[in-house]
Amino acid sequence: MSEPEHISIIDSPKHVGETVRIGAWLTDKRSSGKISFLQLRDGTAFFQGVVVKNAVTEEVWNLAKEMHQEASFWVTGEIHEDKRSHFGYEIEISNIEMVGESEGYPITPKEHGIDFLLDHRHLWLRSRKPFAIMHIRNEMIRATYEFFNKEGFIKMDPPEITNSAPEGTTELFHIDYFDTDAYLSQSGQLYMEAGAMAYGKVFSFGPTFRAEKSKTRRHLTEFWQMEPEMAFMHQEESLQIQERYIAYMVQCVLDKCAYDLKLLDRDPEILKRYTKTPFPRITYDKAIEMLQSAGYDTKWGADFGSPEETYISDQFEQPVFVMNYPKAVKSFYMKSHPTRDDVYICADLLAPEGYGEIIGGSEREDNYDVLKQSILDHHLSLDDYGWYLDLRKYGSVPHSGFGMGLERAITWICHLDHVREAIPFPRMINRLRP
Amino acid sequence: MSEPEHISIIDSPKHVGETVRIGAWLTDKRSSGKISFLQLRDGTAFFQGVVVKNAVTEEVWNLAKEMHQEASFWVTGEIHEDKRSHFGYEIEISNIEMVGESEGYPITPKEHGIDFLLDHRHLWLRSRKPFAIMHIRNEMIRATYEFFNKEGFIKMDPPEITNSAPEGTTELFHIDYFDTDAYLSQSGQLYMEAGAMAYGKVFSFGPTFRAEKSKTRRHLTEFWQMEPEMAFMHQEESLQIQERYIAYMVQCVLDKCAYDLKLLDRDPEILKRYTKTPFPRITYDKAIEMLQSAGYDTKWGADFGSPEETYISDQFEQPVFVMNYPKAVKSFYMKSHPTRDDVYICADLLAPEGYGEIIGGSEREDNYDVLKQSILDHHLSLDDYGWYLDLRKYGSVPHSGFGMGLERAITWICHLDHVREAIPFPRMINRLRP
Ligand SMILES: [Mg+2]
Ligand SMILES: [Mg+2]
Repeated sequence: MSEPEHISIIDSPKHVGETVRIGAWLTDKRSSGKISFLQLRDGTAFFQGVVVKNAVTEEVWNLAKEMHQEASFWVTGEIHEDKRSHFGYEIEISNIEMVGESEGYPITPKEHGIDFLLDHRHLWLRSRKPFAIMHIRNEMIRATYEFFNKEGFIKMDPPEITNSAPEGTTELFHIDYFDTDAYLSQSGQLYMEAGAMAYGKVFSFGPTFRAEKSKTRRHLTEFWQMEPEMAFMHQEESLQIQERYIAYMVQCVLDKCAYDLKLLDRDPEILKRYTKTPFPRITYDKAIEMLQSAGYDTKWGADFGSPEETYISDQFEQPVFVMNYPKAVKSFYMKSHPTRDDVYICADLLAPEGYGEIIGGSEREDNYDVLKQSILDHHLSLDDYGWYLDLRKYGSVPHSGFGMGLERAITWICHLDHVREAIPFPRMINRLRP
Repeated sequence: MSEPEHISIIDSPKHVGETVRIGAWLTDKRSSGKISFLQLRDGTAFFQGVVVKNAVTEEVWNLAKEMHQEASFWVTGEIHEDKRSHFGYEIEISNIEMVGESEGYPITPKEHGIDFLLDHRHLWLRSRKPFAIMHIRNEMIRATYEFFNKEGFIKMDPPEITNSAPEGTTELFHIDYFDTDAYLSQSGQLYMEAGAMAYGKVFSFGPTFRAEKSKTRRHLTEFWQMEPEMAFMHQEESLQIQERYIAYMVQCVLDKCAYDLKLLDRDPEILKRYTKTPFPRITYDKAIEMLQSAGYDTKWGADFGSPEETYISDQFEQPVFVMNYPKAVKSFYMKSHPTRDDVYICADLLAPEGYGEIIGGSEREDNYDVLKQSILDHHLSLDDYGWYLDLRKYGSVPHSGFGMGLERAITWICHLDHVREAIPFPRMINRLRP
């Protein structure tokens, strides 16, 4: 007899009726006299292994009965359909070869507190919910590369270590860079603008850092951002790219992650709404009106907090663009509105279901004198930003860009309570390990 | 007449004989009485615009004559084939609309020193050589995602901020993390091992950091690493993935970057050699023998420096694996050789043409007691590495992984003199801006 083929659980549908070999871990088990049910995982999916006492050696039967949660082994057996399970397939086990024992695995099927789980994140990643989230995260990353490559963007990586601090040093992590001061980047945008002038359409996708002391469910100190920047492009076209991108990414998750959505109990019918473009748009002025009519005390000129963003997004079935924010609550590099002195040409994209801002973007100020004045007005150093001004000195062009926070988008798409579950090893003010 | 279509230069081949509109910058120009040749770029490619005095208005003719290097504008014109150029197409210009002036652009067609160019990196990126390198970098990144996705890996991002220092703190950047000490990660590997136990096959691709004071042509303080980690996998299968991956990436560059290779004057025939697998393999013992026969003074037990790596790689037409290094020159987490107490199951992949190590990898120690002893022998803290030991306590499995330095691989594939040209904004001991 030939050796059984070594497969992954996820490939079971292609091997129904065949005898295969799988490297797996035990997640749970139960026994009823002459039959044992082993819940197995191999990192690609979860499914059930069935051991029938009369069909295996005594040694295998005893192994199945005695092994502990998270023991690792090779199983050999025949793949069957199993319509009662999420996954739809199971394996009828004929042999088990132990690989690694597991005594006293700390994460049991009972409920654990969040601090306990985060302290054991290196093991918690093996559980069903983190599994589903990380698979969806992977698909969102894959879809992002696919989308921007198809649209003619090239990936350009801005530096993580910088000598300057665009929005003040209080929210930046300080680094001892040999004999000088440096900071961890909280956005690559300014560098991406240099990239757009060189390569037309560029995107970055990497970690960024914010030394925020806030402990809200939306904040991490280390988070991944995706920041496209486009030359010869006004804000209107940028908004169209943003909505096409979000719709594409959600569609990819629907196409490739049906199993993960089931594990999370996330209704695909809700996600389908987000694959339809265009997304609704309102101005900041209109948002203020809506808030005030609903009894909010928010004055024109104020930034939106979580309650305001949630109220606004609840009025729509899709993500909604809020356009043209007051200058005081946005950044020095944004382009002034042509007919309104008090607002920028910018927009935030608010996710539905109360998840708040997932994208922030704008047209960039392309006039040398206006930008220079803005730098001075914001008490920034012309020495630090001279290179950035150069982009307006030598062939300035209209250009626009945006930034998406990956973990916030995952939190929304997976319908999570807290952004800390959207990244493998979350970093927060009180959380630096493992 | 309908509006001319707005296209990118790279799409010219699809528009021969059509009148189109392109947003572009001027890189150079020359004039001969009644005809002006404008060298244009738009970030997707470089090509020539031809202005014939009699065919345009006086205003356009004067614009063409008077505009400076890096001025930006919209050009309208008809696409023609141009067999004499690298690119193969040109545009016969009928109209020019200025967008941005450019006076005194610092990077002229003459030669500039490297420090001057690096000080102007935000502009230098626009030049032909950086353009070609960044397009090849982009394709290598794209090919990496494609390869590992096809092979069933998921992308998992390890943390950048860590509380511990696997290989001592002298080469790590220190961060003030609120009230505690933290470090920038120089490798995500240990975290990727937790990922492999959870998801089977994982890869990371992100920035890593090394506070190295060395000023060699191979060192950056901030560089991108790609680190796959595979559960239930021995070193042999990992080596096969490594050679398949490198061959795939080089093939993608050959397929997609012919124009960029031409700009760099890089002979595709040489690169074709690297698309053939398997790659040759020698042991460290054999490498020592070869070096000593060639008159090198290298003793068994010594690590290889640049001269040794160059000599070894020069003996092969393809990348070469050097296997089973002495324990003293490699890392505590590697798996001991089954029949040799003095070496690990590990391999470095040395690039041809004198480019040295581009991949380092190994099977990982999967025995709890052996790894614990290794941690103690290396004076590492069991408190810091308790979570890492857990991976051997709860269902340990044979597993292997490797890390590729992106910039070193680019330096090799593009045949560059120095790794600093392989990243958009290089960070080195004396280089932190722009
Ligand atoms: Mg906001
Ligand atoms: Mg080495």
